[in-house]
Amino acid sequence: MATFSRLVRFLAKDGHIYYGDAVLPAGVSDVAQATQARVIQGDIFGQHRVTDQIADVRLLLAPLAREDIGTVRCLGLNYEQHAKESNLPIPKFPVLFFKPVTAVAGPSDDIPVAPIAQESEGLDYECELVVVMGKEAKNVPESKALDYVLGYAVGNDVSHRDWQIKRGGGQWGLGKGFDGWAPLGPGIVSSKLIADPNALHISTTLNGKTVQSSSTKDMIFGVAKTIAFLSQGTTLLPGDLIFTGTPQGVGMGRKPALWLKDGDEVKVSLEGVGSIVNRVVFDKPSSKL
Amino acid sequence: MATFSRLVRFLAKDGHIYYGDAVLPAGVSDVAQATQARVIQGDIFGQHRVTDQIADVRLLLAPLAREDIGTVRCLGLNYEQHAKESNLPIPKFPVLFFKPVTAVAGPSDDIPVAPIAQESEGLDYECELVVVMGKEAKNVPESKALDYVLGYAVGNDVSHRDWQIKRGGGQWGLGKGFDGWAPLGPGIVSSKLIADPNALHISTTLNGKTVQSSSTKDMIFGVAKTIAFLSQGTTLLPGDLIFTGTPQGVGMGRKPALWLKDGDEVKVSLEGVGSIVNRVVFDKPSSKL
Repeated sequence: MATFSRLVRFLAKDGHIYYGDAVLPAGVSDVAQATQARVIQGDIFGQHRVTDQIADVRLLLAPLAREDIGTVRCLGLNYEQHAKESNLPIPKFPVLFFKPVTAVAGPSDDIPVAPIAQESEGLDYECELVVVMGKEAKNVPESKALDYVLGYAVGNDVSHRDWQIKRGGGQWGLGKGFDGWAPLGPGIVSSKLIADPNALHISTTLNGKTVQSSSTKDMIFGVAKTIAFLSQGTTLLPGDLIFTGTPQGVGMGRKPALWLKDGDEVKVSLEGVGSIVNRVVFDKPSSKL
Repeated sequence: MATFSRLVRFLAKDGHIYYGDAVLPAGVSDVAQATQARVIQGDIFGQHRVTDQIADVRLLLAPLAREDIGTVRCLGLNYEQHAKESNLPIPKFPVLFFKPVTAVAGPSDDIPVAPIAQESEGLDYECELVVVMGKEAKNVPESKALDYVLGYAVGNDVSHRDWQIKRGGGQWGLGKGFDGWAPLGPGIVSSKLIADPNALHISTTLNGKTVQSSSTKDMIFGVAKTIAFLSQGTTLLPGDLIFTGTPQGVGMGRKPALWLKDGDEVKVSLEGVGSIVNRVVFDKPSSKL
């Protein structure tokens, strides 16, 4: 089990990037408000220790460095009300798709929208509980599955519905896999602090207005069941992420549809974990970045 | 550009695992027949050198170590005749899905079949040209795309049609992503040796009998076009793999369907690269490995 409570990765005021255990002011639970952290030395999935060194946080980064992230798995249609608003049947098994590691971004990073995703409408938000695996897991039973979890974050499964559903030949990866389209954070709250990941309020605000508000208890396949299912014949590795699906209220499900625009600010929040805020930025056609 | 001609990763007779540049006997082009290799020192994607040290090959391994593999992308329905045998329209854009890195296996590894994939019929083979990216690529034009390629291998996109198509909610990742379901090799032949990756014979034999035989020139989206397309708004990293789809002749397309069974031996071959041979092994229900 992790030695830390709230793992953050951050640019410190001293100019270095550290892993740390966030120090939160009394009464604060949103990791995004951490201004200090105890520096962690060593391998966060193996031998490491939380030191006495306190560093001042300048900027919270994606809570795992790219080289510490394994496979990014995502579930589709995993909330009953969302499946209904999508006019799709309740799945009998978890619906699995993937994002590349280059989609992962930090809690305040912009969401870049490439020209290919500006050609047609359909840019959408999805607040999600993100599971971070802490130990290698294969063929684990549901009753033991949470033992393999390092902790939880909140993420936004940014999606372009036209590429996801219509132009992608039915496969969702392309329309959800662009650079920066899986921002997450603000940190990873240890599973020792979250006894039941399926009893947390989860929400999205768009430019300050609530557009999704639900509870992770409405998941069709809960966290433990999901891990057990995905581990069948498949080794989940430390640093693997699982985006566990989104509740109702996405832009696609509204009448009229509500698509993200250049400059929009999207905040996704998860009870006990905190919130991330990302701004939509349309790339210029010539942009290489 | 790579300094090596045919990159192999191997267990040597001295007990060590090396990267090397395969030494092939005169007249031999199948990297699988390499019995010796010049040891490579350093980072194969960065500073490295082919040394004068010759090592004897005991066993060829997956041509990249797990930590050197990035994202595993795959195209579906990328050969015209295969799209037709699948009764699906020719795609307008590349159809993208992903496999986890744990699916990657070596050129002679068994293909393990977990109990979940034994419950119903549908285990199938797919010979594919595999592109190995050598440099970071984003928004690259088709005319420059091949400059970012390290080399090519041959792979088997092992698929369970029932999980891929029926039980996976329409998303293909689950039914194609089990441990060891992306064997590839026998090595990575440098792009400097393969001027045109879309002019290579590709084939599969099942227990010695030819079941797929085609040419990569029948791809709907050729290698350069595929890389350019996938790099739009998305950074392809060194060590990323692209399985580029399979030609006609898969078991699903036959009447009656031809499914892989326990003990079957599948060989997939690509002109100028060589061949890999993997045996299907059904796991026992209690197996944790």
